[in-house]
Amino acid sequence: MSVEPYDAVDVIRAKRDGGAVPEPALRWMVDAYTRGYVSEAQMASFAMAVFQRGMERDEIRVLTDAMIASGERMSFSALSKPTVDKHSTGGVGDKITLPLAPLVAAFGVAVPQLSGRGLGHTGGTLDKLESIPGWRAALSNEEMFAQLDEVGAVICAAGSGLAPADKKLYALRDVTGTVDSIPLIASSIMSKKIAEGTGALVLDVKFGSGAFMQDFEKARELASTMVSLGEDSGVRTTALLTDMNVPLGLAIGNANEVRESVEVLAGAGPADIRELTVALAREMLALVGQPDADVEAALDDGRAMDAWRRMIRAQGGDPDAELPTPRETHVVTAPAPGVVTRLEALPFGIAAWRLGAGRARAEDPVVHAAGIDLHAKPGDRVEAGQPLFTLSADDAARFDRALEALDGAWEIGDEAPDSGPLVRERIARD
Amino acid sequence: MSVEPYDAVDVIRAKRDGGAVPEPALRWMVDAYTRGYVSEAQMASFAMAVFQRGMERDEIRVLTDAMIASGERMSFSALSKPTVDKHSTGGVGDKITLPLAPLVAAFGVAVPQLSGRGLGHTGGTLDKLESIPGWRAALSNEEMFAQLDEVGAVICAAGSGLAPADKKLYALRDVTGTVDSIPLIASSIMSKKIAEGTGALVLDVKFGSGAFMQDFEKARELASTMVSLGEDSGVRTTALLTDMNVPLGLAIGNANEVRESVEVLAGAGPADIRELTVALAREMLALVGQPDADVEAALDDGRAMDAWRRMIRAQGGDPDAELPTPRETHVVTAPAPGVVTRLEALPFGIAAWRLGAGRARAEDPVVHAAGIDLHAKPGDRVEAGQPLFTLSADDAARFDRALEALDGAWEIGDEAPDSGPLVRERIARD
Repeated sequence: MSVEPYDAVDVIRAKRDGGAVPEPALRWMVDAYTRGYVSEAQMASFAMAVFQRGMERDEIRVLTDAMIASGERMSFSALSKPTVDKHSTGGVGDKITLPLAPLVAAFGVAVPQLSGRGLGHTGGTLDKLESIPGWRAALSNEEMFAQLDEVGAVICAAGSGLAPADKKLYALRDVTGTVDSIPLIASSIMSKKIAEGTGALVLDVKFGSGAFMQDFEKARELASTMVSLGEDSGVRTTALLTDMNVPLGLAIGNANEVRESVEVLAGAGPADIRELTVALAREMLALVGQPDADVEAALDDGRAMDAWRRMIRAQGGDPDAELPTPRETHVVTAPAPGVVTRLEALPFGIAAWRLGAGRARAEDPVVHAAGIDLHAKPGDRVEAGQPLFTLSADDAARFDRALEALDGAWEIGDEAPDSGPLVRERIARD
Repeated sequence: MSVEPYDAVDVIRAKRDGGAVPEPALRWMVDAYTRGYVSEAQMASFAMAVFQRGMERDEIRVLTDAMIASGERMSFSALSKPTVDKHSTGGVGDKITLPLAPLVAAFGVAVPQLSGRGLGHTGGTLDKLESIPGWRAALSNEEMFAQLDEVGAVICAAGSGLAPADKKLYALRDVTGTVDSIPLIASSIMSKKIAEGTGALVLDVKFGSGAFMQDFEKARELASTMVSLGEDSGVRTTALLTDMNVPLGLAIGNANEVRESVEVLAGAGPADIRELTVALAREMLALVGQPDADVEAALDDGRAMDAWRRMIRAQGGDPDAELPTPRETHVVTAPAPGVVTRLEALPFGIAAWRLGAGRARAEDPVVHAAGIDLHAKPGDRVEAGQPLFTLSADDAARFDRALEALDGAWEIGDEAPDSGPLVRERIARD
């Protein structure tokens, strides 16, 4: 019989009553949970106590560290190039990783982008790329290293060996109403990113109606917490706080988001996608010693596109293959002339999800050709009868519930809305 | 596939964010948990949210009602006598049920005392009575009814059919740090008492260092919540708030507490035990229409003792049998002359537990002869070398850890301490 040095009930009680959990007890709690000695019910109670009482910075650091220690930790120090990664807290129409990774790689930097799949209304980068015939998300560590060395950019699935404690805790939080807690979100994201071994990291922390953290101040607190966690672990980390009230770009889905990304890589594409891609690329390159890199030129002269084509080919994809097209479409038109005054990210994300672009359960497939294409954005003038957006699906029966989600989600009025800048603030350690 | 009308995550979130859970959703949550559809982890998260956010009176009423509805509900309406029960929130040396039940029964009232076993530092009434050779706690419903009819008093184990949702939830709370929450305690106690079918109920709600609710104001809130729950369900209910800073009586254990109870039934015994027994008996008899019953006379003239002997015999016990005696004893003496100024209930409860009088896990046995006998109480004058208390156990190896618990638990000084009345306040519905 093994003797455990702590009692889960004591750890829960300490947090429940608003205290800080001492470092060895918190490390034990995470380890004992990973081993199955601390039960799901005990960890659920602890997570709710953290939700209610919060955690001090130092506790969040220990929690993150304990989750890293639950699995393997990778290192890219054998590479001849610096590494930099980007993480977005998730949004609607957020395909920035697709043009961003090859753009940064075009400057001789390694971008190990370990990504996930979508769940709920926010899409998953791997789901989008799997629209490309032949492309595969699963790479061995050797394949990943070789591709980082030769191509520079890799977008692939995270191995199951990274932060298994986080994997277990994340699944638990999802069913116990303990997702939206800053200490738990920050430690979850950062444990994976630090374990992945990147030398530098730029966080795209979203705020607004389509974001995880709708409130700006909370998003800023999350960003600052994560920047501290990264820096404390030796990962140079900065964050941009970006507006997620309106869908990013004109495409929401999978295949259509790949198409839009390729437009940006060809030096064109929607202005907001280009703007955010450029801002994040500058931030990433600055962290690896290239603060003056002319990233706009690399989009305009084809260098980023070349890197994209090599990246897709290296993972078995055909960059010239035709992408899936939808069987059914439904066009919504403007009922009256005017200016688009509102187009809310969250309902458009939910509608695309209902059309088949996202999944309700982790084991569900996604429909690559399903989604929404916008024809106008807030501030754009439209005439009566002009198409506002097109819904796409494999089955016309899906349109009704998608349209239900969009009820009240957009508006046409008289005056262009006042919207702040897309990139609202930059957070770095003081 | 059955379709569930609610989602546990929505119910958890509502409470998590401080809202009241609507009646049908809360009823569903309890029912779905009892069925196993809502998981232990989800209920643990919900319980911690209740701990942090509290519940409105109406929510507590619905929660209690849903737990009652999870099992059978008994009724004593076929009896020719009124029924009244007592419940104590648990203390150190609290053997009041033993003299109280026969005392009240001596007035022609039925006292169906469904009791539990001890866990942790508070003793269990059934454990104490099992010191009596031949006595058995398990009765069928038919045996219980017959005994209530013929003898009036029954102290037996609660059937497993009463409030099974509470049984499941109580076990969960015990391991998830969600025990000390007023809504959860009140609904747990009252669901069992209301399901049991008593017509009237007196609550002995303890406060002070040896009580579950150490704080007086919290104990008062718990009492008032339980009184409301009882009255709302048609059970006439009152509560006494009683001091649990000092052990009750001189005996803490099992067999020694039976001996002390018999002394009280013989018209003698420690003053505090007699005082509390009389106060609770008056309260119980007042609820069933005998506000002027002379309970002290029934203790002094042997009527209560007669009822005790019949009650013990009816359950197979021999009221004249010798009770178990300890193999080992250890006497602690006064180091200097003076007055006992402090004798704290909680450490004495823990010490008796460590001596073998209580159990750490529900399946452990108890040692009936183990415990502590006090020879002096706060306010008593002692000489140097005079015995203060005697520890009893079956194994002398247990004394060390018991003495450790008692370190600093008592004090001898110059002046008698100021202590308030034992029965501090009476709570009834306005």
